[in-house]
Amino acid sequence: MAAVTYELIKEDAKSSARLGRLHTPHGSVDTPVFMPVGTQATVKAMSPQELQEIDAGIILSNTYHLYIRPGHELIRKAGGLHSFMAWPGPILTDSGGFQVFSLGDLRKISEEGVEFRSHVDGSKHLFTPEKVMEIEMALGPDIAMVFDECVSYPADYEYTKKAMERTTRWARRCKAAHDKKDQALFAIVQGGVYKDLREQSVQELISLDFPGYGIGGLSVGEPKPLMYEMLETTVPLLPVGKPRYLMGVGSPDCLLEGVKRGIDMFDCVLPTRIARNGTVFIKEGKLVIRNAQYKEDFTPLDHDCDCYTCRNFSRAYIRHLFNTGEILGLRLTTIHNLYFLIRLMKDIREHLAADTFLEFREEFYRNYLADEI
Amino acid sequence: MAAVTYELIKEDAKSSARLGRLHTPHGSVDTPVFMPVGTQATVKAMSPQELQEIDAGIILSNTYHLYIRPGHELIRKAGGLHSFMAWPGPILTDSGGFQVFSLGDLRKISEEGVEFRSHVDGSKHLFTPEKVMEIEMALGPDIAMVFDECVSYPADYEYTKKAMERTTRWARRCKAAHDKKDQALFAIVQGGVYKDLREQSVQELISLDFPGYGIGGLSVGEPKPLMYEMLETTVPLLPVGKPRYLMGVGSPDCLLEGVKRGIDMFDCVLPTRIARNGTVFIKEGKLVIRNAQYKEDFTPLDHDCDCYTCRNFSRAYIRHLFNTGEILGLRLTTIHNLYFLIRLMKDIREHLAADTFLEFREEFYRNYLADEI
Repeated sequence: MAAVTYELIKEDAKSSARLGRLHTPHGSVDTPVFMPVGTQATVKAMSPQELQEIDAGIILSNTYHLYIRPGHELIRKAGGLHSFMAWPGPILTDSGGFQVFSLGDLRKISEEGVEFRSHVDGSKHLFTPEKVMEIEMALGPDIAMVFDECVSYPADYEYTKKAMERTTRWARRCKAAHDKKDQALFAIVQGGVYKDLREQSVQELISLDFPGYGIGGLSVGEPKPLMYEMLETTVPLLPVGKPRYLMGVGSPDCLLEGVKRGIDMFDCVLPTRIARNGTVFIKEGKLVIRNAQYKEDFTPLDHDCDCYTCRNFSRAYIRHLFNTGEILGLRLTTIHNLYFLIRLMKDIREHLAADTFLEFREEFYRNYLADEI
Repeated sequence: MAAVTYELIKEDAKSSARLGRLHTPHGSVDTPVFMPVGTQATVKAMSPQELQEIDAGIILSNTYHLYIRPGHELIRKAGGLHSFMAWPGPILTDSGGFQVFSLGDLRKISEEGVEFRSHVDGSKHLFTPEKVMEIEMALGPDIAMVFDECVSYPADYEYTKKAMERTTRWARRCKAAHDKKDQALFAIVQGGVYKDLREQSVQELISLDFPGYGIGGLSVGEPKPLMYEMLETTVPLLPVGKPRYLMGVGSPDCLLEGVKRGIDMFDCVLPTRIARNGTVFIKEGKLVIRNAQYKEDFTPLDHDCDCYTCRNFSRAYIRHLFNTGEILGLRLTTIHNLYFLIRLMKDIREHLAADTFLEFREEFYRNYLADEI
C-alpha cells in the first residue's frame, strides 16, 4: 500500500473538475483542497490550533527554508516536522527547486545540481536530487516533492526544453534515492508555456510512475490565459487515479479555474502575505483595511463570513490595529483570508457533489468585481 | 448599589494578605488578581479568546493611548471598549496621568491640568480632570481611575508633597465630573517614598469616599524595599471593604510581596513586553529563549506548566521561531508569561484559602533563583 493514495469520488459531468479524497499517514483530506503555506515550520501569524479551527486539512512547508534554518538534522532529532511544529495533520514539503532558482545571481545550475548561497548568511551549499531527498526524508512530511529545475517567464524554447528534460532526469534520481515507506514522492511537470514540452514532460514522468504529480513553472509571471491553456494540455494526460497539484496558485479565480481543469491540490502564500499588509478577500473581491472609509465602519470584514474575525471584530477595530502596528491585526486578517479560501474550496466540493459546480463558479464571478489580487 | 463592589472573603491570619471577590457590571473576579495590559485596546499578540482560555479575569487599557488612537469618540460610537475590542469581561482604564507625565519635555503641568504633545504626530492636547473623566466615560470600562500627578524617583519632598496635594484636588474634581452609574471611579494614592505624605494622601482620599484605591507612583525606579515600606505604611490605612490596586507592578516576587501587604489588584506590561523579546518566566526564574543552549532542547519552556505553549511546543521550536522572526514565537511566549502570572495568582488564592500562603511564598522563593526580572 502506497503511503499516499488518491480516491476518486466523482468526476464532474460538465467540466474536468473532480471530487476526491487524499489518504495520508496523518489523515485524509477532501479534494480539491487549498494548502496554507508554513514556510519556516509555521503558517505565518497562525497557531496550529487556529489552523485546525478553520479546517485546514493539509499544509505545506518549504524545504529550502527549513534546510537553512533550523536545519533538517535538528528537525529529524525533534521527531520530524509534525512533532517539531505540533501539526497533527498531513504535510507536504516542496523541494526547494523554486526557491534556489529564485536566488538569481546567488545560484549556479549544473547537471549535478544547484550550487547556491544562503540568503541568510551567504554560506555556500549544493542541492542535488539525492541531497534534497535526504533532507525531505529527514523532515518527514507525508508528501515530498522531487527536486526540479524551474524556468522563469518568459524563457525561450531551447532553454525551457533543456530544463524540462533535466527535471525528468532529476526526478529519476530522486526516485532512486527516495527510501521512506511512509512518505509519498510526487513528480513535477515542467515545460514552461510550450504545449509540446508540457506533453513530453508528462509522458516521461508518468512512465516513471509517481503516486502524484505537481504542475510547476506556472503562475510565475505569464498571463493567466496561458496558464489555463497549459492546464488544459497537461491535466488530461495525467493518470486519473493520481492527485494533481498546481503549485504556487491561490487567488480565488485561479482556484476556480484550476478545479474546472481537473486540479486537486493548490498552495500559495498570497492569502497570508496580503493579509499581513491589510488586504482581505471579500465576496466582492478585496478590501484594503487601512483605507479611511473604514474608520467608523463597525461591520465585519466580509458580511457573509462566519470566521472568528468576522464573528467578533469590526472593520474599524481591525483598521485601528493596523494603524497602531498591533499584532492582533494581522492575525485577524490572516485567519479571515485562509478561512475564505478554505470555505471557497468547501463550497466547490459541495457544488461538485450536487452537480452545480459550473453554476457556482458563474455565481461567484457575478459578485467578484475585484481586479487581479 | 455601587457599580463595582469588593467582597472580602478571608483575611490571612499570618500576614496582611486577603482573599476576596470583585463584582463588576461585566462579571466577578477573584482577588488577589493580576490584570494583563491591553494598551491600545488589545493585549499585545493575544486574542480575546486566548485571554479567556488562560482565565484572564480583568484586563487594563490605557486612556492616553486610546485618546490618541483611535480616539474616545470613535470607541463611544462602537458601543464602548468592551464591544470595540470584543472583550466580554471586566476592564479597568488608567487615567493617562502616568503616560502624560512620562512624556517629559512634551508636557507642561499646571493646576488646570497637563498640556502635552502627542507622541504620534506632535499635536497639542490638554488633559484636565474633567476631560479625562469625559474620555473614560466614553471608553466605558467597569473601573475608571482618577487623573493624578505622578512624580519620578527620586523627587524631593517639597515637589512630591505639592504633586500629592494636587492629586487630591484633582481627585475631587474627577469625582464631581464623573457621572456614569455603571462605572466605578477609583482614587490614586501618591506621596512618593515619604511615609507622612503617603499617610496624608490616604487620609485626604478616603475622606472623599471612593469605591476603590490605586496606589500610584511606585515601581518607578525606587529600590524594592522602599516600595514595600510604602505599602506597609499605606495599606493599613485604607478601608477594609474597598479593593486596593498596586499600579504597574507585575514581577512574580513583587506580586507575592504586594499580596502579603494587602494588595488585591496588580497590572504590568512586564510579562508581555519581555515575552516579545524572548524572555519567559519559569519556576526557576527566567529563561532567554534565544540562547544557544536551547538549540536542541526539545522540552517545554517550563516543565511544570500546562499552558498551550508548554503542552505543545519545545524550547528548540520557539527558539527557531524567534531566530526567524516568526510571529508565532512571540505569541507563544506571551501566552506562557501571562499564564504563568495568572496561575501564580490562582496558587496564591488557593493557599490563602488553605491558610498556607506564607509557606507557599517561601517555597516559591526556594525555586526562584533569578536576578531581578
